[in-house]
Amino acid sequence: MITPKTLSGFKDRLPKEAMAKGVVLDKLAHVFKSFGFVPIETPHLEYAHILTQEQGEIQKEIYRFKDHGKREVGLRFDQTLPLARFIAQHHSVLGLPFKRYAIGNVFRGERAQKGRYREFTQCDFDFIGSHSILCDSEIIQVIIAGLRALDLEEFSVWINHRKILNGLCQHFGLHAQEDTHTLLRVIDKLGKIGHEGVLLELNTYFPEIDFKEFLSIINTKQEEDSLEFFKRVAYLKDYNATLKEGLEELERLFALLLALDINPDHFKVDFSIARGLGYYTGMVCETTLNQLTSLGSVCSGGRYDNLSRSFSTQNLPGVGASIGLDRLLVALEELELVESKSTSARVLVVCMHPSHFVYASQVAQNFRQSEVNTELYPEIGKLKKPFSYANQKGHEFVVVLGEEEVQKESLTLKNMTTGLQVNHLSFLKALAMVKE
Amino acid sequence: MITPKTLSGFKDRLPKEAMAKGVVLDKLAHVFKSFGFVPIETPHLEYAHILTQEQGEIQKEIYRFKDHGKREVGLRFDQTLPLARFIAQHHSVLGLPFKRYAIGNVFRGERAQKGRYREFTQCDFDFIGSHSILCDSEIIQVIIAGLRALDLEEFSVWINHRKILNGLCQHFGLHAQEDTHTLLRVIDKLGKIGHEGVLLELNTYFPEIDFKEFLSIINTKQEEDSLEFFKRVAYLKDYNATLKEGLEELERLFALLLALDINPDHFKVDFSIARGLGYYTGMVCETTLNQLTSLGSVCSGGRYDNLSRSFSTQNLPGVGASIGLDRLLVALEELELVESKSTSARVLVVCMHPSHFVYASQVAQNFRQSEVNTELYPEIGKLKKPFSYANQKGHEFVVVLGEEEVQKESLTLKNMTTGLQVNHLSFLKALAMVKE
Repeated sequence: MITPKTLSGFKDRLPKEAMAKGVVLDKLAHVFKSFGFVPIETPHLEYAHILTQEQGEIQKEIYRFKDHGKREVGLRFDQTLPLARFIAQHHSVLGLPFKRYAIGNVFRGERAQKGRYREFTQCDFDFIGSHSILCDSEIIQVIIAGLRALDLEEFSVWINHRKILNGLCQHFGLHAQEDTHTLLRVIDKLGKIGHEGVLLELNTYFPEIDFKEFLSIINTKQEEDSLEFFKRVAYLKDYNATLKEGLEELERLFALLLALDINPDHFKVDFSIARGLGYYTGMVCETTLNQLTSLGSVCSGGRYDNLSRSFSTQNLPGVGASIGLDRLLVALEELELVESKSTSARVLVVCMHPSHFVYASQVAQNFRQSEVNTELYPEIGKLKKPFSYANQKGHEFVVVLGEEEVQKESLTLKNMTTGLQVNHLSFLKALAMVKE
Repeated sequence: MITPKTLSGFKDRLPKEAMAKGVVLDKLAHVFKSFGFVPIETPHLEYAHILTQEQGEIQKEIYRFKDHGKREVGLRFDQTLPLARFIAQHHSVLGLPFKRYAIGNVFRGERAQKGRYREFTQCDFDFIGSHSILCDSEIIQVIIAGLRALDLEEFSVWINHRKILNGLCQHFGLHAQEDTHTLLRVIDKLGKIGHEGVLLELNTYFPEIDFKEFLSIINTKQEEDSLEFFKRVAYLKDYNATLKEGLEELERLFALLLALDINPDHFKVDFSIARGLGYYTGMVCETTLNQLTSLGSVCSGGRYDNLSRSFSTQNLPGVGASIGLDRLLVALEELELVESKSTSARVLVVCMHPSHFVYASQVAQNFRQSEVNTELYPEIGKLKKPFSYANQKGHEFVVVLGEEEVQKESLTLKNMTTGLQVNHLSFLKALAMVKE
């Protein structure tokens, strides 16, 4: 006997969870499509050198191996590098601008921790090939529309601009790109190690710089009205041209969003949002749920100058974001915003004898042809079993067919919620009660 | 520079194809759910020993490697072994009977051939935990309903029964299970190597047996009415008890299906269907499209006695089938049964100057709020570019916003199919024309 178990860090989705995931993905895809984003698919396996071009911790986490043809291959750890490869490979056919979404699993051999999985689902959407601020605005709109479609009401997309961070770095004496990246990586840990921890770590890297004022600016979050906020921080425009540009781009972005029918509480400025990854160059954002801030960001992204720089000399700017679906599902369950049934059928049809099989199959088919999802219990015997099956799975109605029902071409219908049972109904009467 | 390319045998899906796949999967999932099948998900990676328990050619094709914790792991090559592991692991929570569907990618390091991929999508549905013939009937119904939902009209599910094949083997002197399996494997090649090829290969394995009559029986396909067919082959019941049981089970199955509102041309008997795999024990089936028989089976399956025998002493019979989605998509495209657009949006909104961005964003939002998928072209400049973009992608309407439209809060609408352009419409009039 083999012990049936999944690998550590990997998990099965049982029907209730898989159905909830399906509902969430359908709603998100509906929103993506409403903005004109189209789906694409890339393979789970890529040449390893496609995945290993970026530096960083993540390199150690890639599942790499040699395939049957001795090629070095790897399982994708995000959908961004595959997108860069995809665009470079197909852009002449695709046409630009190009807006794609991709829902897929990625793999990271991280140390196993509670709530962290080695295979998880990402839901990415990117707007490629344009510098226009309309794209940035659209990405923020899609995040908000997506979460609203899931009945989430209290959340904020926290927005920052890399030019604001770069301008601050310049102002405080950090000019080399490498130093800026080090600093951004440390700032990204604010949530984890706190203000003091960040200060301590920054001092080890740059002992000559006093980061107190720097950190107090970085800790600026919008609490007031957007217009008032931009007034409050306007003095930063005088620090240098980069800071000025960054602030003005954010102002333009907010002006576009404020003109739309969107709750202004859903998007706010937070100067501490850094998104450590090297490739962001413009707007960056993270999204937190007000009731579950400890969960961290459920959707993050930003603007980048050149997505496919390793693959092509063509300049391909873009802006996009990624929803961490597993984390979002945890949140939705916590907030009781997902259905919790284990069946896709509303009606369970039960019969008492093999000679009823034909009639039972016909009754089930009739319900289905009337758009009522209907399951036929395959076993005969005592009624206790199918009734406890329906209770466990969540069927709303049980139809019972015995000798008399078969003779009279009728059926007995039990409403599992109210407990009400009606005998010898015609099919049409039963259908009316189910559809009521 | 890195050359952007996918691994040999792996492919990207561009938007048109990915959208077509999405539509097909939505329709299939709708059918599965209408019968009460629920989705589950298992990881792409499993312990290697979970995947290597079955003998056969396929073992060499598994993508195997050591993970970060030096565990022997492998990418799944089908969804049946993961289902067996899943059921053994979770059956006490799931409750029986259990009906699941699973849509997922599987990996096989086969020799690359035209139209064969090393990563492909399978769409499986299984009814676990019952010997009842209602389950067999339901699997055939689901296949037929699934293909009908995709607007396929001319196809047949070819059905056989393992007891018929076993009974024939017995009759012709093959009694050991091993010999029967060898024979079934050879018979499975009928389509590839033909009658003569099979005869030749069988003679090398069993030189003492004359397979001529055997093969002429195996080549029996139902062409007439089901009742007449079963009369024609009734003499086989006298050969032995196994053959009799097999034939009678098929007769009962056909009686159930014939009582339903299903075109009887969609299910027929074919004694040559073997489904080489060792684990089938009852009904087996394959599905061909009449106009594309050379494509082979688009959906195959059967009944098995004990799915989880390697994992559990509990007896778990079941019946199921698997749709080869990639092959099905090829067929649907060949038969022109898939939409061929590269956009999810019906309307493209274009504006002429950054000062129009706010109004353009509002117009696009208004269309979306009226359930019209709408894309906003992010660039300004000559109209030639967005119009050729709309032509290439397949937008039905282009909305143009210039200075005058912004002043008057109106819009200009061009129907891309008829070429008709109407200027200075109110939003509501434009919406009415789009929804017409």
